[in-house]
Amino acid sequence: MDEFFMEKAIRLAKFGEGKVNPNPLVGAVIVKENRIISQGYHEKFGQPHAEINAIESSREILKDATIYVTLEPCCHYGKTPPCVDKIIENKFKRVVVGTLDPNPLVSGKGVKKLRENGIEVLVGVLEEKCKEINEIFNYNMIKNKPFVAIKWAMTLDGKIATKNYDSKWISSKKSRIYAHKLRNRFTAVMVGINTVLKDNPMLTCRLDGGINPIKIIVDSNLKIPLECNLVKTKESKTIIATICKDKEKILKLKELGVEVIVTKENKNKVDLIDLTLNLYKRGIDSILVEGGGNLIYSILEEKIANKIYAFICPKIIGGRESVTAVEGIGKEKVSECFEIKKWNMRKIDNDILIEVEV
Amino acid sequence: MDEFFMEKAIRLAKFGEGKVNPNPLVGAVIVKENRIISQGYHEKFGQPHAEINAIESSREILKDATIYVTLEPCCHYGKTPPCVDKIIENKFKRVVVGTLDPNPLVSGKGVKKLRENGIEVLVGVLEEKCKEINEIFNYNMIKNKPFVAIKWAMTLDGKIATKNYDSKWISSKKSRIYAHKLRNRFTAVMVGINTVLKDNPMLTCRLDGGINPIKIIVDSNLKIPLECNLVKTKESKTIIATICKDKEKILKLKELGVEVIVTKENKNKVDLIDLTLNLYKRGIDSILVEGGGNLIYSILEEKIANKIYAFICPKIIGGRESVTAVEGIGKEKVSECFEIKKWNMRKIDNDILIEVEV
Repeated sequence: MDEFFMEKAIRLAKFGEGKVNPNPLVGAVIVKENRIISQGYHEKFGQPHAEINAIESSREILKDATIYVTLEPCCHYGKTPPCVDKIIENKFKRVVVGTLDPNPLVSGKGVKKLRENGIEVLVGVLEEKCKEINEIFNYNMIKNKPFVAIKWAMTLDGKIATKNYDSKWISSKKSRIYAHKLRNRFTAVMVGINTVLKDNPMLTCRLDGGINPIKIIVDSNLKIPLECNLVKTKESKTIIATICKDKEKILKLKELGVEVIVTKENKNKVDLIDLTLNLYKRGIDSILVEGGGNLIYSILEEKIANKIYAFICPKIIGGRESVTAVEGIGKEKVSECFEIKKWNMRKIDNDILIEVEV
Repeated sequence: MDEFFMEKAIRLAKFGEGKVNPNPLVGAVIVKENRIISQGYHEKFGQPHAEINAIESSREILKDATIYVTLEPCCHYGKTPPCVDKIIENKFKRVVVGTLDPNPLVSGKGVKKLRENGIEVLVGVLEEKCKEINEIFNYNMIKNKPFVAIKWAMTLDGKIATKNYDSKWISSKKSRIYAHKLRNRFTAVMVGINTVLKDNPMLTCRLDGGINPIKIIVDSNLKIPLECNLVKTKESKTIIATICKDKEKILKLKELGVEVIVTKENKNKVDLIDLTLNLYKRGIDSILVEGGGNLIYSILEEKIANKIYAFICPKIIGGRESVTAVEGIGKEKVSECFEIKKWNMRKIDNDILIEVEV
């Protein structure tokens, strides 16, 4: 039964997707005599935690109840008071925890305090699943860096666009919806300047109720046209990363509401490691890199990527001059190339989605 | 029980792979009182059929036995006398047939003759599987053309070689063994002249007991160097297809044991449709196209391909100048590209093999 209720809590947690970053997704279910009497999830950054939402929406007395929570309840004051105190105060009999807090500074402390107050605690029910829903948060806590994923959609012959840069549509509608779910889940989307110049994209999240990601453009020489969509749109912040110190253009961009970050240099280009750490300090916990090929190659070279989502679609474009997902200078020998240790595949419609753990 | 014995017959049939072309693979199992008393398969082109091998290796009397055979027994004289007569002569009680003969001229005639002679016949046991093992033969019989498959091995970012044409090794050892099994199964392997100039390949089948395929080089301008491996090796025939009429070079090639086919022209190149029909007349029932990208693009453009085997391997090479599987001029718009209706995927080691029915 523990797994049954934890599964329910996981499903609840996922409702917070895109809305709680950089907090973790958390779900909670309160059970008395094998009956769910209340439930809750962390709904929005800065708002109450899952446990509190579940506790406060209960119409029954909580004494001797069991609370299932996907992540260890906190025992410290953040934007809200510690959940552990609220659990103790309500005289719960038992707490079932999916996974401990990944933050090494607090991990295990919540559980310890509960036990010291005579509450029975079980840790590790559906642990892997509970970890999986917070891969971004877990990575942030351990590494103090943003979680970076790369996404592309290519044909069976490895093309992401024709020689004329046409790419509408390589992937199926369902895959494109999945891609928009990624934009909803990631705090920011990153593209290179060539993608802006060629596609003039919006990079919005076109899902009902979806959150538009922050847009980051890597533009070493500050070539961005002031009239492009990413400068004009105001739905979410646009950040331009550059090493160019053209004060006049920077001023103009700032007047248009665009943030400009001047980073360290790495081979006459934006230093991507410096940039990602800078972005993390600004609260950007997760970045989805959508292209183009030069930026993706650099991200791989700098070992910044944690994950790749590659859609392979049942089409063939052909062409020596067609565009591929990873370009840049490229490796000279197969023996020097990036090796993938672990990947999984699944079908989305008739497309194949390959998920790579880098 | 019928399916059990037919499964056995299918397994037997496959032992003939690479050795019976352009005949079909056929297996036969003889059963009496639910006990296998004899079995056989078509072992080599020109030699006895599966039924005859099973009948002749039986040590028991065959009267009232059942024979399971993956393909309808023949009722005509070919290189061997009709199997149907032998079945009637031995007073079999029952014949279980996997699938009817695909040749429209004889399909159903064997079954008819057996029934007319009072033998019970059941058709269609594991029919799909029985058809599958002879996809090449079935296609030949219906279309009077060779069965053409394309094979490539690419990285996750769609590269088949680095910019320096290094491709050793993109795919895993197990995938490379699978590729050699394809060379064993197909009567001929085809490559473009650029592949010869850049890789100087052998195109042999490096499997114990494997059959080396006939090597076909599409070389419109007859650029082939006389000292390349494909001209020098004598393990199996080399055929060069060209539109160039350089008599001196053709003579030299012939002296070296190479066959030269001068085909019709199509846009100043070898007319691939003319070539494949010509090859079919020479008994080449199946062709595996292994590259390069220009030839593969032309094969797709001419709608000659029946199948694609694409290995996707857990590596990333990157590079604007790296080599991709399908090159040529390429499509200008995604809406004009080759669409794939049906594909299947499976893992071979850590590689993914995608099989496409074109």
